[in-house]
Amino acid sequence: MTSTATAPIDPIDPTDPIAAAAALGVGARVTLSVMADDYVRVITQAISAVETHDLEVDTDKVSTFVRGPEHRIAEYLRDLIGAASAHGHHVVATVMISRGCPGEVCGVVGPPQAPTPHLAPAGVPVQAQWSLYPLFDPDGGARPGDHLAPVWAAIERAKQAGTYLRSEHFATTLQGDLADVLVTMLDTWLAAAQATQHVVTHATIVANSPVASQDLR
Amino acid sequence: MTSTATAPIDPIDPTDPIAAAAALGVGARVTLSVMADDYVRVITQAISAVETHDLEVDTDKVSTFVRGPEHRIAEYLRDLIGAASAHGHHVVATVMISRGCPGEVCGVVGPPQAPTPHLAPAGVPVQAQWSLYPLFDPDGGARPGDHLAPVWAAIERAKQAGTYLRSEHFATTLQGDLADVLVTMLDTWLAAAQATQHVVTHATIVANSPVASQDLR
Repeated sequence: MTSTATAPIDPIDPTDPIAAAAALGVGARVTLSVMADDYVRVITQAISAVETHDLEVDTDKVSTFVRGPEHRIAEYLRDLIGAASAHGHHVVATVMISRGCPGEVCGVVGPPQAPTPHLAPAGVPVQAQWSLYPLFDPDGGARPGDHLAPVWAAIERAKQAGTYLRSEHFATTLQGDLADVLVTMLDTWLAAAQATQHVVTHATIVANSPVASQDLR
Repeated sequence: MTSTATAPIDPIDPTDPIAAAAALGVGARVTLSVMADDYVRVITQAISAVETHDLEVDTDKVSTFVRGPEHRIAEYLRDLIGAASAHGHHVVATVMISRGCPGEVCGVVGPPQAPTPHLAPAGVPVQAQWSLYPLFDPDGGARPGDHLAPVWAAIERAKQAGTYLRSEHFATTLQGDLADVLVTMLDTWLAAAQATQHVVTHATIVANSPVASQDLR
């Protein structure tokens, strides 16, 4: 689970953003679900329509793998989920974003230099259930009693960003424009990676839900 | 992210399986996506049809929370995803299962006593992308260099079980009957929890994919 690449990592070529992301283990997987009979057309059109410069994109039966700079991953996810949602169909996007373990054996990867991505609004209101997993610090691993400290800090950042709706068992529900929810995911993941090398974040993002918020929490 | 309950944990009542699961932080969240115009009917019928004895079940706009003994969670997931898949529609189930952090501050929770769940086949072939996160060991946290050791052990168990298809970036693809894939998820999660208290596993499970395996990996 992580790259199967075991070859020594070459020095990073600063002109190759995909190789740079690979050396840091930066990437994402996304599964789009469109709840309509014509889902194949909607999904394939969305995947085809999204700009992929500076990204490696590989779709299999379960998900699409995306590798590249953090801001390009953010833009890709916004544009892909936004395109699939533009028809008004109920859409669920299952997203994971990972950093800090570029191979089967995690070498030492420095903290992120990337600033928090800025994303123009998508115009797509969403709810998302989000979780953040700080996994590995080569300087000593998680400290007893505070392994969730980066998670509480992330929830505070979500509250400040205005995307926090409420805490759940095992997850936090975010709400807002798709772009703002993705920025919270990326921002808190990058912040956690300042202290913990290997950090993964997951979210289940829902657009165009038929359920009015007063009917179901 | 985790329970918001901060009250002291009461002694476990052995006759109350839901309270026992709550004290161990054992539970799951699942989101069903059905790619058909009549998805609301299919999903609500599946949720209504599944047997829920010994389980707490709470559905919100994004997911369904399930709490109870491990074997009942396994049966619930098999029956729910199986029911949604029975119509032949393309189904994506986003599943997370957690153990070992029953409140906002993780107390010390003992290793699982539960045996690996045995599940009768669902008759539903699936592919799943699966990941396992060993988060917290109160005896000292993840050891530098071996924080993924439980993950490699889990992949070995999946290979022995015959559900392993291949390794991916950030995930492992499993393939087989829905019941066997769920057993691999639960079995490896329980095995990892023998050494690491707080363990979370995620999977994106796909049934009735229109993509023939020779068309797309």
